[in-house]
Amino acid sequence: MFVQNCWYVAAWDHEVRDDAFLSRTITGIPLVFWRNSKAEIIALVDRCCHRGAKLSMGRTENGGDCIRCMYHGLVFDRSGACISAPAQDRIPRNARVRAIPVVQQHRWIWVWMGDPEKADRNLIPDTQWLDHPEWRSLDGYLHYDVNYLLIADNLLDFSHLPFLHPTTVGGSPDYAAVLPRVERTERGVRLTKRVTDTEPPAYSAKYADYPAGTRVDRWMNYDFVVPGILIMDSGMVPTARGERDGRRENALAFRGCQALTPETGNSTHYFFGHPHNFLIDRPEVTREIHAGILHAFEEDREMITSQQQNLALDPDFRMAPLSVDAALSQFRRIVEKMIKADSTYAEVTQPSRA
Amino acid sequence: MFVQNCWYVAAWDHEVRDDAFLSRTITGIPLVFWRNSKAEIIALVDRCCHRGAKLSMGRTENGGDCIRCMYHGLVFDRSGACISAPAQDRIPRNARVRAIPVVQQHRWIWVWMGDPEKADRNLIPDTQWLDHPEWRSLDGYLHYDVNYLLIADNLLDFSHLPFLHPTTVGGSPDYAAVLPRVERTERGVRLTKRVTDTEPPAYSAKYADYPAGTRVDRWMNYDFVVPGILIMDSGMVPTARGERDGRRENALAFRGCQALTPETGNSTHYFFGHPHNFLIDRPEVTREIHAGILHAFEEDREMITSQQQNLALDPDFRMAPLSVDAALSQFRRIVEKMIKADSTYAEVTQPSRA
Amino acid sequence: MFVQNCWYVAAWDHEVRDDAFLSRTITGIPLVFWRNSKAEIIALVDRCCHRGAKLSMGRTENGGDCIRCMYHGLVFDRSGACISAPAQDRIPRNARVRAIPVVQQHRWIWVWMGDPEKADRNLIPDTQWLDHPEWRSLDGYLHYDVNYLLIADNLLDFSHLPFLHPTTVGGSPDYAAVLPRVERTERGVRLTKRVTDTEPPAYSAKYADYPAGTRVDRWMNYDFVVPGILIMDSGMVPTARGERDGRRENALAFRGCQALTPETGNSTHYFFGHPHNFLIDRPEVTREIHAGILHAFEEDREMITSQQQNLALDPDFRMAPLSVDAALSQFRRIVEKMIKADSTYAEVTQPSRA
Repeated sequence: MFVQNCWYVAAWDHEVRDDAFLSRTITGIPLVFWRNSKAEIIALVDRCCHRGAKLSMGRTENGGDCIRCMYHGLVFDRSGACISAPAQDRIPRNARVRAIPVVQQHRWIWVWMGDPEKADRNLIPDTQWLDHPEWRSLDGYLHYDVNYLLIADNLLDFSHLPFLHPTTVGGSPDYAAVLPRVERTERGVRLTKRVTDTEPPAYSAKYADYPAGTRVDRWMNYDFVVPGILIMDSGMVPTARGERDGRRENALAFRGCQALTPETGNSTHYFFGHPHNFLIDRPEVTREIHAGILHAFEEDREMITSQQQNLALDPDFRMAPLSVDAALSQFRRIVEKMIKADSTYAEVTQPSRA
Repeated sequence: MFVQNCWYVAAWDHEVRDDAFLSRTITGIPLVFWRNSKAEIIALVDRCCHRGAKLSMGRTENGGDCIRCMYHGLVFDRSGACISAPAQDRIPRNARVRAIPVVQQHRWIWVWMGDPEKADRNLIPDTQWLDHPEWRSLDGYLHYDVNYLLIADNLLDFSHLPFLHPTTVGGSPDYAAVLPRVERTERGVRLTKRVTDTEPPAYSAKYADYPAGTRVDRWMNYDFVVPGILIMDSGMVPTARGERDGRRENALAFRGCQALTPETGNSTHYFFGHPHNFLIDRPEVTREIHAGILHAFEEDREMITSQQQNLALDPDFRMAPLSVDAALSQFRRIVEKMIKADSTYAEVTQPSRA
Repeated sequence: MFVQNCWYVAAWDHEVRDDAFLSRTITGIPLVFWRNSKAEIIALVDRCCHRGAKLSMGRTENGGDCIRCMYHGLVFDRSGACISAPAQDRIPRNARVRAIPVVQQHRWIWVWMGDPEKADRNLIPDTQWLDHPEWRSLDGYLHYDVNYLLIADNLLDFSHLPFLHPTTVGGSPDYAAVLPRVERTERGVRLTKRVTDTEPPAYSAKYADYPAGTRVDRWMNYDFVVPGILIMDSGMVPTARGERDGRRENALAFRGCQALTPETGNSTHYFFGHPHNFLIDRPEVTREIHAGILHAFEEDREMITSQQQNLALDPDFRMAPLSVDAALSQFRRIVEKMIKADSTYAEVTQPSRA
């Protein structure tokens, strides 16, 4: 049902603390996160192996390296092994909970829900703009009551922008009319699109000090990788100083970072930030950009949630792909292929190699 | 599950407008209704053929003759054909949504959910009293969280009136003791009942200027047709000027119009009006009659909803028909027979012939 | 799914009245309770045999010996036989609802959901302390949204006390370290545990007038019988006047009475009282003890409800029994065995022999 062998964003870094547990369900599996006294992150399945209680209702011990289930008192170390069970002479060998490989990188906490042996940190998408000193953004999160693939469809589709978001990220009709180039990558798809000598879009024109009547070149490049990580490179530059040549002098640019993480088959965590490279010393600009993005994302959520209600009414409904759907069709095929590949990995309770 | 080839009431006429969409689910299928600039009503399945979005979140175009999906911009004409799709060279032939035959007649908007070829307007029950100048009523609507057949059972059953509605439409014990005559009609059942030389019921006696002690003849005739349209002709007349002979001199009469429309298998729209032919220049009388009917219908809803909860607890419960249930037993057989007949009609996406 | 042939607690005695119905679902079956004019309790299935309406929406007749369904007017006597049906010449022989054997004893109303022939009053557990003049308690009730077996597990397990209830009934580590003796009884299990020459627990020490530094012997004996009735005998006595010899001079003792009654497969009624034998003329002590117990039971409910949520996420989760789980493992086997034995009893609609 879900891709196992990939990195999922589980949280913003500040959500995982040393003085409280974060309990969050990822791909239908409840996880508990916390930091030990060295600020290292530990992630275990949030379900005591004894009788299924939530470990996150317990407490840390040993300087935060262990967690004690406060139902019957079992203690687990960071590898998930049970190291103490009250009134138990011998602790059974299989008394353990699954430890989950976890990495903090550029403001996000990533988890690997599949085979720990395959948890390659190099597969984590680069989101450096979330904490880069020359970029600014705010932390975004939305919860969806729909399957994550419907949201991935939305993110892989530029064609809806002028219709669903006319006042925010929509752009002009000529811009909308240009289809992006779609390429297959190893673990996803890449979309690239540029429109030269066009109007600057209202939502970013107001931040530019371009002379009146300036025409611009616009670009929007997406890298979208499983499970649903979108790294967007978009912006505009005055046409004369064209983007065509790779130069982006005096450009206003954004590096949107968005992550879809299935909570269950019917709900999704959505993490996002929208870093910009201009006016970074003016927090009100960052707030305004964030508010605009959030507004657009709530327009998406309203539409996708009602789409989901329609699909629930008729499970036999078949979508009718159009030309604009090339990217999302390809992406769905990649997801299906990876799920098939995962199924050869028998999920077992095993310790983290982190 | 539902009869397809019949007229369902979808709305009161004022609910369908030219400046907003009405989205309403009928027999499990979401529909969108609106009026074009000529006040004609258009009804389509409220689900874009592209990716299932709700058309009712879109906007009208071309003087209201077309609807644009505001997710990806597809435009559909009133026949349901897609006539525009952004960034699409050629519109696929099967890009269409289903158009639903729709008729406005005597204050109600009727839809035909089955084969459009069979949508015969003459099959629409006559509800002329809802907008007849010599009759008065108010517009009623209730929503039920139960399958519509449980409500049809209730409407086909006179025997519950004195028990569930003792203070409103209940009537006296001698009236309740008389069973109606039950006849099979082409698409339903007809119940007729008359009681002569009896007390006038409290709820209508107060509107009559009969001398004290006047005895009356009462009648109550139902026509109940699929899916659940009830046209009731009831009233009373002083015994001397008897109803027996077909004369109804100085009669106080009602022509109740009620319509059950399944929303889903577990919920129902209930439209009703209760026209009366007396004191029609006194709006407070009409309001009082409506309030009394609404009160009784809410008594029904409370009882039927708890009945539904009981049935949900034990799906194996078998009802035990009594003599009073002849009409509803016959009606359920008609419904079953019509559903069977429908199943030979393969439902396909096709344009309205309206 | 549920044991049929056993006594379930359905209510506290004051909940069943002569001027109102109590409608309560027990093992998935809706029941209606009331008292007739002689204060005798009548319990019927709360579902009219005619069309499934709730009898509890009706009214009593004949001095409270009969109940009339206010949907269509059928009247049932206390044996469940239909004795009147409006406009019905002959009442069908099978027109009846099931009567449920019901007994009031020591403040609780007990029902027998299985074969009435087997409803032996001697099988009702003794809860005399709930209305004994030398003991005091308050009436407790909690509703759980979990299957009753998860709560039975909790009650059969002493090991969770120091972890989940450290500030109330938890007790000291040395007390927790002692495993109870577990014995099989005819319809359940018995746990016995004593710890001699130990600290008095904080929650009862404050009520004792023992000299400072007094050591105590503590005991805790459980009788737990199907479906989930717990009679607890616990307390402490100064070590010198030891409990070992059966003497309990100057003892502070409790006789906890707790009853789990499945409402449905996913919800449970939980009735409890916690009688104490000391300071019985001080109502504030009784209130304080009750509040402490209630606080602990709400800790249990919070933990067990989250456990249930975890189990719902993964129906394949297998619990891993430890040494401390001997009692609950035995009890689950007894329940399974009794359910199997019940299945030879074909449930039919039959009158109470009560």
